Amino acid sequence: MILTVTLNAALDITYRVPRLHPHTTNRVTEVSERPGGKGLNVARVLAALGHRTVATGFVGGGTGEALRALLAETETEVTDALVPVGGATRRTVAVVDAATGDTTQLNEPGPVVSPAEWDTFLGTYRELLADARAVALCGSLPPGVPVDVYARLTRAARSAGVPVLLDTSGEPLRRGLAARPDLAKPNADELAALTGSTEPLRAARDARRRGAHAVAASLGADGMLAVTADGVWQAAPPRRIAGNPTGAGDSAVAGLLSGLVEGLPWPDRLTRAVALSAASVRAPGAGEFDAAAYEELLSRVVVTDHPAVV
Amino acid sequence: MILTVTLNAALDITYRVPRLHPHTTNRVTEVSERPGGKGLNVARVLAALGHRTVATGFVGGGTGEALRALLAETETEVTDALVPVGGATRRTVAVVDAATGDTTQLNEPGPVVSPAEWDTFLGTYRELLADARAVALCGSLPPGVPVDVYARLTRAARSAGVPVLLDTSGEPLRRGLAARPDLAKPNADELAALTGSTEPLRAARDARRRGAHAVAASLGADGMLAVTADGVWQAAPPRRIAGNPTGAGDSAVAGLLSGLVEGLPWPDRLTRAVALSAASVRAPGAGEFDAAAYEELLSRVVVTDHPAVV
Repeated sequence: MILTVTLNAALDITYRVPRLHPHTTNRVTEVSERPGGKGLNVARVLAALGHRTVATGFVGGGTGEALRALLAETETEVTDALVPVGGATRRTVAVVDAATGDTTQLNEPGPVVSPAEWDTFLGTYRELLADARAVALCGSLPPGVPVDVYARLTRAARSAGVPVLLDTSGEPLRRGLAARPDLAKPNADELAALTGSTEPLRAARDARRRGAHAVAASLGADGMLAVTADGVWQAAPPRRIAGNPTGAGDSAVAGLLSGLVEGLPWPDRLTRAVALSAASVRAPGAGEFDAAAYEELLSRVVVTDHPAVV
Repeated sequence: MILTVTLNAALDITYRVPRLHPHTTNRVTEVSERPGGKGLNVARVLAALGHRTVATGFVGGGTGEALRALLAETETEVTDALVPVGGATRRTVAVVDAATGDTTQLNEPGPVVSPAEWDTFLGTYRELLADARAVALCGSLPPGVPVDVYARLTRAARSAGVPVLLDTSGEPLRRGLAARPDLAKPNADELAALTGSTEPLRAARDARRRGAHAVAASLGADGMLAVTADGVWQAAPPRRIAGNPTGAGDSAVAGLLSGLVEGLPWPDRLTRAVALSAASVRAPGAGEFDAAAYEELLSRVVVTDHPAVV
């Protein structure tokens, strides 16, 4: 199975309003809820691709119960191995202005995790690694979790012989890279914040020097750039896809990780990641993709190699 | 006991953000939750005043469970006689911009109530009336509830010999007045929407002609105007009170209703309603008031009678 870790899982709530008027009362006309947090989005896409997938991380309170119920309801089966905590799972609220299409996002901070809860999680994580073919470590950290958590989780996975994909930002990314994950998947902003360079190839090579065996940088509409021991490739979608980009990066992670587990060559992994990412822009929410668009895009993603820079 | 009815109860969520930036991602720094919906706010204030109070209405889903848990936790005891429904209790989200103090409010519509659930509620309501000394019918209607609901509930209460206070707006108010409630408590905007007049005395007298035995109109910082069979009075706070006006009207309802049950003369009822209303502006949320401010204000509210217009 493939394991995904979501330390700061969320109940994602989407509100549709005819038009958002700040500083007044707004009537919400449509409410929808989804399991949220990057690792849970990745898990749902992996499961939809046919991979046996287990999701762990923290969950708690009434919002946590709602998240678990939604996870159990999803058509594609994700095994719930979330660890209960005393605090309540955070909510995220996306307010979609129907008039402009713009989204105003409100993100709760998440529950404080106690040292005892953190210990319980580490035990669960080590047990799950025994059966894992790969692990994705995804997203921000809730309060109370040590900032070097992804370094610790990366080392535990590498000791168990399980390949690690790291998708986070800021200090947790910087610390995590030093533990030498097999693959890091920053976006352009995260890469720039890490390295100080806004030139993706230069920044991705810098990130590799910081410890990642390979770096696959998501570049929005420009697709994805991979800097690996075997070469450098860039994959781009055939056209700009209109829609909701939330969760596109999580779909790319699912593409990269499934490609790794299936032993695909790098260009095919990138093709899958870029096609999934673009197909998820066409779906209503994170953790979902338009299956028909995915199939069509698979044959139309263009991969270029950069032999000169290897 | 005093009975309050909240057909569209809510889980009231307050988010504090350093500054609200529409159309971007906002980090919420503080989250708080309260039982919400006008009737539940009224019930909490009545209970704090020492009245045995029972709250009914509809509740459902995980948000409903959270609401019930919060209601059970409150220091002042309100008996929970809410009727379960299949849909989930709505949330309201108040986003407080810490830089400006402004609040952006997002109100979910509420669960659809089925005819069977509505019948169950009517049975519960009739049973509760047997032990009630007064009833408050408060707030907006969830989808699926007949628009003449407050007229029906008013007639049932009057048949049972229980005095009725009606606090709603729009068509439910217009229909409810025709069933001759003992007291209606509109605010100036609701009164203007009902009668077409922005002159409070004229509008309140018009509302009385539409069926209410008495009308007590809340006028914000100007206090409250009562038009009754016994006379016309206006009560005003001694000064403008700075703070959060959410729930001030609900505290006024609790003041009026407790005064009615205790058989206070009209000027004393108004004094209590205005003092409670002003004291609730000093409290953090709806359904709460600053007890010290209330005690101080009780002796300083000024009541004027309007013998010329009786």
